Amino acid sequence: MTDHPDLQGLPLERKAALLSGQDFWSTPPVEEVGLPSVVLTDGPHGVRRQEGDLGTLGITRNLPATCFPPAVAVGNSWDPSVAERTGAAIGREARALGVHVVLGPGVNIKRSPLGGRNFEYYSEDPLLSGVLGAAHVRGQQAQGAGASVKHFAANNQETERMRISAEVDERTLREIYLPAFERVVTEAAPATVMCAYNKVNGVYASQNRWLLTEVLREQWGFAGVVVSDWGAVDDRAAALAAGLDLQMPGDSGAGNRRVVEAVRAGELDPALVDTSAARVAALARYAGEPADGFDADAHHALARELAAQCAVLLRNERGTLPLAPGTRVAVVGEFARTPRFQGGGSSNVNATRVEAALDAVRALAGGDVPFAAGFPVDGPGPEDRDAAALRDEAVALARAAEVAVVFVGLGDAEESEGFDRTTIDLPAPQVEVVRAVAAAAPRTVVVLSHGGVVSLEGWHDDVDAVLDGALLGQAGGGALADLLYGVANPSGRLAETVPVRPADSPSSLSFPGEQGRVVYGEGVLVGYRGLLTQGRPARYPFGHGLSYTTFATSDLRVEVTGDDTASVSVTVANTGDRAGAHVVQVYVSTAAGPVRRPLRELRAFTKVALGPGESRQVTLDLGRRAFAYWDVVESGWVVAPGEYAVQVCADAETVLLEQTVALAGDDLVPVLTMDSSVAEWFTHPAAGPALAEALTASLPADAASPGDQAMVLQMIGSMPMRRFATDFGAALPADLLDRLVAETAAARTAH
Amino acid sequence: MTDHPDLQGLPLERKAALLSGQDFWSTPPVEEVGLPSVVLTDGPHGVRRQEGDLGTLGITRNLPATCFPPAVAVGNSWDPSVAERTGAAIGREARALGVHVVLGPGVNIKRSPLGGRNFEYYSEDPLLSGVLGAAHVRGQQAQGAGASVKHFAANNQETERMRISAEVDERTLREIYLPAFERVVTEAAPATVMCAYNKVNGVYASQNRWLLTEVLREQWGFAGVVVSDWGAVDDRAAALAAGLDLQMPGDSGAGNRRVVEAVRAGELDPALVDTSAARVAALARYAGEPADGFDADAHHALARELAAQCAVLLRNERGTLPLAPGTRVAVVGEFARTPRFQGGGSSNVNATRVEAALDAVRALAGGDVPFAAGFPVDGPGPEDRDAAALRDEAVALARAAEVAVVFVGLGDAEESEGFDRTTIDLPAPQVEVVRAVAAAAPRTVVVLSHGGVVSLEGWHDDVDAVLDGALLGQAGGGALADLLYGVANPSGRLAETVPVRPADSPSSLSFPGEQGRVVYGEGVLVGYRGLLTQGRPARYPFGHGLSYTTFATSDLRVEVTGDDTASVSVTVANTGDRAGAHVVQVYVSTAAGPVRRPLRELRAFTKVALGPGESRQVTLDLGRRAFAYWDVVESGWVVAPGEYAVQVCADAETVLLEQTVALAGDDLVPVLTMDSSVAEWFTHPAAGPALAEALTASLPADAASPGDQAMVLQMIGSMPMRRFATDFGAALPADLLDRLVAETAAARTAH
Repeated sequence: MTDHPDLQGLPLERKAALLSGQDFWSTPPVEEVGLPSVVLTDGPHGVRRQEGDLGTLGITRNLPATCFPPAVAVGNSWDPSVAERTGAAIGREARALGVHVVLGPGVNIKRSPLGGRNFEYYSEDPLLSGVLGAAHVRGQQAQGAGASVKHFAANNQETERMRISAEVDERTLREIYLPAFERVVTEAAPATVMCAYNKVNGVYASQNRWLLTEVLREQWGFAGVVVSDWGAVDDRAAALAAGLDLQMPGDSGAGNRRVVEAVRAGELDPALVDTSAARVAALARYAGEPADGFDADAHHALARELAAQCAVLLRNERGTLPLAPGTRVAVVGEFARTPRFQGGGSSNVNATRVEAALDAVRALAGGDVPFAAGFPVDGPGPEDRDAAALRDEAVALARAAEVAVVFVGLGDAEESEGFDRTTIDLPAPQVEVVRAVAAAAPRTVVVLSHGGVVSLEGWHDDVDAVLDGALLGQAGGGALADLLYGVANPSGRLAETVPVRPADSPSSLSFPGEQGRVVYGEGVLVGYRGLLTQGRPARYPFGHGLSYTTFATSDLRVEVTGDDTASVSVTVANTGDRAGAHVVQVYVSTAAGPVRRPLRELRAFTKVALGPGESRQVTLDLGRRAFAYWDVVESGWVVAPGEYAVQVCADAETVLLEQTVALAGDDLVPVLTMDSSVAEWFTHPAAGPALAEALTASLPADAASPGDQAMVLQMIGSMPMRRFATDFGAALPADLLDRLVAETAAARTAH
Repeated sequence: MTDHPDLQGLPLERKAALLSGQDFWSTPPVEEVGLPSVVLTDGPHGVRRQEGDLGTLGITRNLPATCFPPAVAVGNSWDPSVAERTGAAIGREARALGVHVVLGPGVNIKRSPLGGRNFEYYSEDPLLSGVLGAAHVRGQQAQGAGASVKHFAANNQETERMRISAEVDERTLREIYLPAFERVVTEAAPATVMCAYNKVNGVYASQNRWLLTEVLREQWGFAGVVVSDWGAVDDRAAALAAGLDLQMPGDSGAGNRRVVEAVRAGELDPALVDTSAARVAALARYAGEPADGFDADAHHALARELAAQCAVLLRNERGTLPLAPGTRVAVVGEFARTPRFQGGGSSNVNATRVEAALDAVRALAGGDVPFAAGFPVDGPGPEDRDAAALRDEAVALARAAEVAVVFVGLGDAEESEGFDRTTIDLPAPQVEVVRAVAAAAPRTVVVLSHGGVVSLEGWHDDVDAVLDGALLGQAGGGALADLLYGVANPSGRLAETVPVRPADSPSSLSFPGEQGRVVYGEGVLVGYRGLLTQGRPARYPFGHGLSYTTFATSDLRVEVTGDDTASVSVTVANTGDRAGAHVVQVYVSTAAGPVRRPLRELRAFTKVALGPGESRQVTLDLGRRAFAYWDVVESGWVVAPGEYAVQVCADAETVLLEQTVALAGDDLVPVLTMDSSVAEWFTHPAAGPALAEALTASLPADAASPGDQAMVLQMIGSMPMRRFATDFGAALPADLLDRLVAETAAARTAH
């Protein structure tokens, strides 16, 4: 096998055969050139290698593999090393399980808290998503397993996902929905990019040449394979022309025949077949010798270690956590015994083992730990009794304990790939148990397990501590126990806002659309960007997370380092008495430019581990993009001249340190045309004065008063100059206008 | 002169000459066929007939005319007779001033509280806007003066109004932004419709054939003239082809020459010139003999009477209003002496006289009424002292009074045609005066004058009563005094929500757009529709307004009367001791259909005047449209089968009586195609069972479990059947699918 087998001598049909799967999960071998079949199967947080043959879309019968923390948890780690080590471990398991490309990571933006697949994605923020996604790819591919960054692009809901058109303006795509893909592609060179099911601005992502070729390949330099999401191809020939290399799953050759016909009919450039087939063939570099199994024990331990770095301590009043060994603890909630640790759908891993928090708590407690299920999960459970009886039992245990730890969350029925949620509420029986336990126990700790955000309203103020696990993978139970007892120190930060109400989410007016279209009406004001800009407090903001130790941040220094870039340094100190990790979050806030800027945007971050009393100076670089917006008129990134506040924040709502710098920005003196507005003409630094002089000189003595003129200009400021000069009979010599048009164009070119 | 002068014999150039103005304000005469010039000048709330010749866009030097209450106030009347009498009086003045078409009414929807021209529009609700606009046109045209309903369409902001593209989905256009125009056109046959400056979905309204021809003429049957807003034509030939008849103002014949060239070059159908010229010529029916002056005294009295029906009593604690004669009143606020009674820009009328509230209050008070200016308006005023001194003087007067009446509002500088506002706050010095006076006076009444909504935050709870005049026209001062002293009883209701914060407005995330586009991301959830749907309380909701008497509403009866129509009857009683008028507001609330419905929508209303103790049964009809939504798949109005709550409300937030009816609705059994989704196929009442049977029969015994199947269906429910049957290899006989496609199509056709 070579990296680039020579396909040139093959007949068209044989080359076209490479453009779709031979079955559900693999590409066809091409024996005559020694090209092996390549197996691509689901990730992203573990390998889902179907048992037996690869001919069907099996979901539940898979070979055992480690279920690592899903992306929702990795997002909360704010730590690329967590993502990278996860990717590496998955890469090792893939090689052991005969899988060559594992389908992940997913870097779509959590546009709405109701998004059904949010658990497979990292964050509502593109920087955080991109940094983590790139790290995952690096880790996985370093082990020889290809990655597939997905779902490209604007796949932000499950409702009608295979037909909906995401209507998104270009600035919003460039600033919010594309940057995570851009970072993964440009920094980590994934083997494949998976196109999304949905349409983007009316065109299927699978057939969207702008997306798959202009942006992805021409602008970002992607050299790998574009693979379809499974079943995403609508018109195989159009998809190939747009830049989609590999259709999955196979459709028994129908698409390939269509491609061959189109080539023969002269409708499709045969070079497209050659290019895409060569790209697919090059995937064979991942089809090396299978590894000889993997160390399930070591990977389980790794999953536990990583999970502990993902959980977020949301609240901790009266120092309730960590629990001291010997504390009389009662554990309540079915999720302590029957963990919810991953989401439903294509990413569902057949875990090698599952660790229950209850067992892990008992192992650490140093004493008896009574347990009550508290509520039914997904209907009648092992204890088929009514909710009131379950609750009463829990309350009785709570009353006798010093601390009640209540494990609540969402069951498999409440969320999954395939549908969006309609509420962020916890099921009512669980809310009732929390309230009842909190009323009975001296202290109450709530532990949350969920893929999508859950509401804390109705009980938050009643409890002392909230530890948010999201979905922590198969070893999450152990990690939660470690965190509860202080064996590990919480260091996660929210990668997604916890809103007071779903209606506070900026997308709530238009999510999930209807009758085939969803309008991204909030534009760039997604997640915390919108909440902050609208002045709506969150229950817990993006970036929030507590620790068992305390940190101080000081000595902010921001230096403009060059062409609209900056260097930020800050000192972080662990001012408490135990080791811990702090996330330095750097945001930029500006009102510069002709577009509406979010109140602030995350532009750099790093996680710093510090021993008690230790301090460290941290330096982060802010590139041009940290200050730029996408200008649709210029079709490019523009740094507007002006002031930029660089803010070190505890979370998106809380500025700790701030320094404002002035940037020269891009000197875009506007080019004037006859379609430029009257206001643009009169305010143009060069043309404006000349124009005003000519206008004044031409006015008769009894012309309108200056007040009249000002009012008229106010009213017609947005009128194109062409119309002002004709319809409104402005006495402007045509040769003057022509001369000024030429002069401004020349000035721009010279610049 | 005949109604339809024969233009057929005229050369092309002479016909084309009719397609644009001969100057700023009139069409050219065509002497050879006896066609007179037609004068079109600004309204909408009074005639703005420029002094002298019509060659320029004069704004401030106009012949005196009565300034009636602007649309913002007429909207608050909720009374078509107020609009109709306003229109009639304007029609009489137009005939006296030699004006043949008065440019109004404006029925655009107040999408944002920041909209700079909101004072010229009625409401955030299309029904209210349409009913009032149609009444205005009826009144005006009955007097022989043509109307011009404007600005068609989606002209909901001033920012970049001559270039911006309003990006609005069709359902939102049909349900929110077009219905007021539709009602005016179909019920009142205005002489002209004025196209807007802006683009609608990328195409200038002036060149938008869908808007000007398909919707306006073909669907609504409009037979009059489409006139451009002044300077709105970008490409004259394209505009003519789209359906724009008359370009205003004249551009010295440039546009007409372009039309002639295009016809000669075969690019434009000459019949278009004939048709549009004939329509413009037909406007001559309004160019009758001028009337011999108008009765300025009678019209001023009418303006006062109408204004009193427009003001809204927002708050009245402790029965503070009406003021008893003899009460020791202090009047504070420059607006009491120098009224703000109309907005700035093209609608600005040179009022025949202006009545100050201060004078009118003094006339009614039966005693001395001291006055303090309280704050400067638009910079240094007649009393050029600093704000603190003005405030102190006001506080001293307030302390000595029994009731302080504070007149606050927005000055001309704060709002006008031509720009949007960036805040809804009152100027800070005014807020300070209100707070200071309220702290000093035993009782405080605030009277508001403003074109756009103003915030009541920061002082609302400190004052006893708030009387909201908005802009009441030249006799507003007298009307306000009548209302304060109970000579008139307030009966206005808010036609626009008073939000707590502008950020609560559903459009706030995208208003006013940037770089040429504004995305109407909130869709149909405009104004109260969005606030209610998102559960955001208003400071004062749409429809709110108090009276000096009390009303009881009872005996709601809703009967389905036919083909998805209903009759609503309710009894209204005046349970107080003085005559007053009550607005019966009927809303419909439903969740039926495949689209997101606002929580409730105004569907009928009527204003009922009742003497003390009097009661009356009121019957209102709800047509099909009261229950329908615009279905973009069906391209039409659809009544979804289901439950509809008919709600009689005190305001949009407050349901008084409710009855739910079931409607059969439109029986739209879906037609299945291979592009229909898997879920649509499997849930189809006829095809679904047959399909499920075939699928089950085809599965091998060891196929996926029912649980697997359910999960798969959940995940790929939105997949087009074509792909399911090929990519996913579903074992569905092709002939079965073909047969089912044919059967469902036949069933729909037969239906």
